[in-house]
Amino acid sequence: MSGGLLITHIAGLVQVRPVAPGIVAGADMAHLPVINHAWILVKDGRIHSFGSMDTCPDSTGHECIDASGRWVMPTFVDSHTHLVFPTPRSEEFVMKIRGATYAEIAANGGGILNSARKLQGMSEDDLLEVTLPRIKALIASGTGAFEIKSGYGLTVADELKMLRVARRLARHVPVTIRTTLLGAHAIPTGMSKDHYVRLVIEEMIPAAAAEGLADYVDVFCEEGFFSPADTEAIIMAGRRHGLGARIHANQLHHSGGVQVGVKTGAISVDHLEQMGDEEIACLREGNTMPVVLPGAAFFLNLPFPPARRMIESGLPVAIASDYNPGSSPAGTIPMMISLACIRMRLTPEEAINATTINTAHTLGLTQTHGTITVGKEANLLITRKVASLAELPYAYDTPWADTVLLRGVTHN
Amino acid sequence: MSGGLLITHIAGLVQVRPVAPGIVAGADMAHLPVINHAWILVKDGRIHSFGSMDTCPDSTGHECIDASGRWVMPTFVDSHTHLVFPTPRSEEFVMKIRGATYAEIAANGGGILNSARKLQGMSEDDLLEVTLPRIKALIASGTGAFEIKSGYGLTVADELKMLRVARRLARHVPVTIRTTLLGAHAIPTGMSKDHYVRLVIEEMIPAAAAEGLADYVDVFCEEGFFSPADTEAIIMAGRRHGLGARIHANQLHHSGGVQVGVKTGAISVDHLEQMGDEEIACLREGNTMPVVLPGAAFFLNLPFPPARRMIESGLPVAIASDYNPGSSPAGTIPMMISLACIRMRLTPEEAINATTINTAHTLGLTQTHGTITVGKEANLLITRKVASLAELPYAYDTPWADTVLLRGVTHN
Repeated sequence: MSGGLLITHIAGLVQVRPVAPGIVAGADMAHLPVINHAWILVKDGRIHSFGSMDTCPDSTGHECIDASGRWVMPTFVDSHTHLVFPTPRSEEFVMKIRGATYAEIAANGGGILNSARKLQGMSEDDLLEVTLPRIKALIASGTGAFEIKSGYGLTVADELKMLRVARRLARHVPVTIRTTLLGAHAIPTGMSKDHYVRLVIEEMIPAAAAEGLADYVDVFCEEGFFSPADTEAIIMAGRRHGLGARIHANQLHHSGGVQVGVKTGAISVDHLEQMGDEEIACLREGNTMPVVLPGAAFFLNLPFPPARRMIESGLPVAIASDYNPGSSPAGTIPMMISLACIRMRLTPEEAINATTINTAHTLGLTQTHGTITVGKEANLLITRKVASLAELPYAYDTPWADTVLLRGVTHN
Repeated sequence: MSGGLLITHIAGLVQVRPVAPGIVAGADMAHLPVINHAWILVKDGRIHSFGSMDTCPDSTGHECIDASGRWVMPTFVDSHTHLVFPTPRSEEFVMKIRGATYAEIAANGGGILNSARKLQGMSEDDLLEVTLPRIKALIASGTGAFEIKSGYGLTVADELKMLRVARRLARHVPVTIRTTLLGAHAIPTGMSKDHYVRLVIEEMIPAAAAEGLADYVDVFCEEGFFSPADTEAIIMAGRRHGLGARIHANQLHHSGGVQVGVKTGAISVDHLEQMGDEEIACLREGNTMPVVLPGAAFFLNLPFPPARRMIESGLPVAIASDYNPGSSPAGTIPMMISLACIRMRLTPEEAINATTINTAHTLGLTQTHGTITVGKEANLLITRKVASLAELPYAYDTPWADTVLLRGVTHN
């Protein structure tokens, strides 16, 4: 019998689900199952078994970690990132502080088109090289699976380049990556919207699908960007090529993005700063996951999405980072959880469900990620020493993770 | 000639002041002098010399650090902390998320009296032991000098115990610590306010002064706590014993705290969430430093202090952490700077001035801390690699410091 990795004396083994549910919604989100004073055994990169310390197996033949005073939980699943980008855009941050509007920043060459211009000038290898340290840092903070969007290419060749980099990342770090073609992120300079939407539908989607580069399509459904009709057309084109759909919806306006998402069966609608009773009722009638992005609301000083109200309406809520150089330069899920607790009044239990089970569902990773369940990948976050789980989001400027295991191996 | 420590190829040497001003105010706060492509030589724990790389001295005989791509700045001075405390109070954080009011938390044994009850049961050695890891973590984040308040003792013996722990810290970590007797932090259970104010004036202050345990007195001047008249009486008692004054002012109400601070010549008035034209005009007529505490405003979901308006009125502004287990569980100054930039629209330059020169002034540390000036203590923060200084507050969930030097020696 080959040995495994035995983690013992865990203060609390968190998110233990003998049979993992697909999602958790409404009042169930407050329930986060924990085994206090626990052990877990990892073998062949998977969760082999676990229990309370009074049933701890003999350590002979196993590598051992004493997790006294620490909590162990599944690594986070971040279902909304733009982490392949050329450079940070801190100069726009300073312009905003000085009072520049979004339109003024765009007129000065800023915004998405700023990233696009830089990205178009970079080789695929160079783009991979600047992205790798970013994803490594995020893994060290506790994230074990990522969705990554294109959207800074805005030409067929450059969108495919971004998606190739996202795919290549998974050969350098042992995490699962799902990719999303977000051609419809902004309208390239000098092109009409309708022309660009046709390009996305007729060229980008077929090309990305033919190369197997995308799992989903996404659309920035927003006044001044892409309409619900554009969104529906792009989603249906994606579906014809076997791609699922996610939508940037209701960030700045009641854009109709939620409704088109539910109507087309999108797996998620993301952002949701602008939500009324109508949007909430619509989500209750469908199977589309609402994903809130507290980092973007915080950084842009926008109202926070009404996540508390959504949960109290019986909806599931997922939380992701929206990590990107313009509107969300923080990519760590612990910071998103703190923002959710402090600004949206989610309990730590709700916020952890929202960043594990529920985000895993939106990426089709329910069988492998998001809970402590026998047979799932041993992607584990071992926390620093804390007296309670709530102390982690409470101390919002202190990292959670002492150690992160990916498929049973320490990442450092 | 004995060797020194030579740091070379610095992307930017920040806060360089050949003649350090006492404070910076108003429009001058936007000016943060930087030498690009610089070196600095440290000898005998002090800043010996510095300049641009074209004048870099020969490295022979010196220990060398190559700071390519990094920025070097003076460590922060945190002028408002409560970092000596028994335990975090994350359980109250959860109560607040669930909707409990301050009064309900207090009725359940929470708040300052919660910390006081625990602290009264701890030995001085135990209190030192739980505090040391906290201050070490804060130093690693870039803080090189601290003010530490009492205020969880609420008896003469326990207030002195806290102050002794604060003094003893400076024998374990090479930082400067200034201590403040905040007996008037809350009213102990079963005692009238007037009785307790007399105890502070007639017993605590004389006892703390006789043992040399306090540099300042402080008062929580707030409706339902201590009045401006109480505040003035305590400040004047402190003055008779040679102690300076700092005040918790205008956190929840227009409490008169600013006015009594200016009237009595307090060195600082801290918090300032509730500020009108009258308070700003009052500060303009005095020499009292306004100190804003963005961490507390953020964590409590209070309005942020109008720091932008204060600067535009010509006032100086200082920023401190208010690190404490109830209302500000984040103690790192980089997080405070990010909050100041994102939520109060201070530029990174203004926020760095506010956490170095201006806080140093309030602790009487102008001669030794807060700027890169020949002869000052070599308390230096060497940042991680970033393309610009603004990238540090922009990436608000990422630590700034790669290395922190205290009196010329690496702290790790």
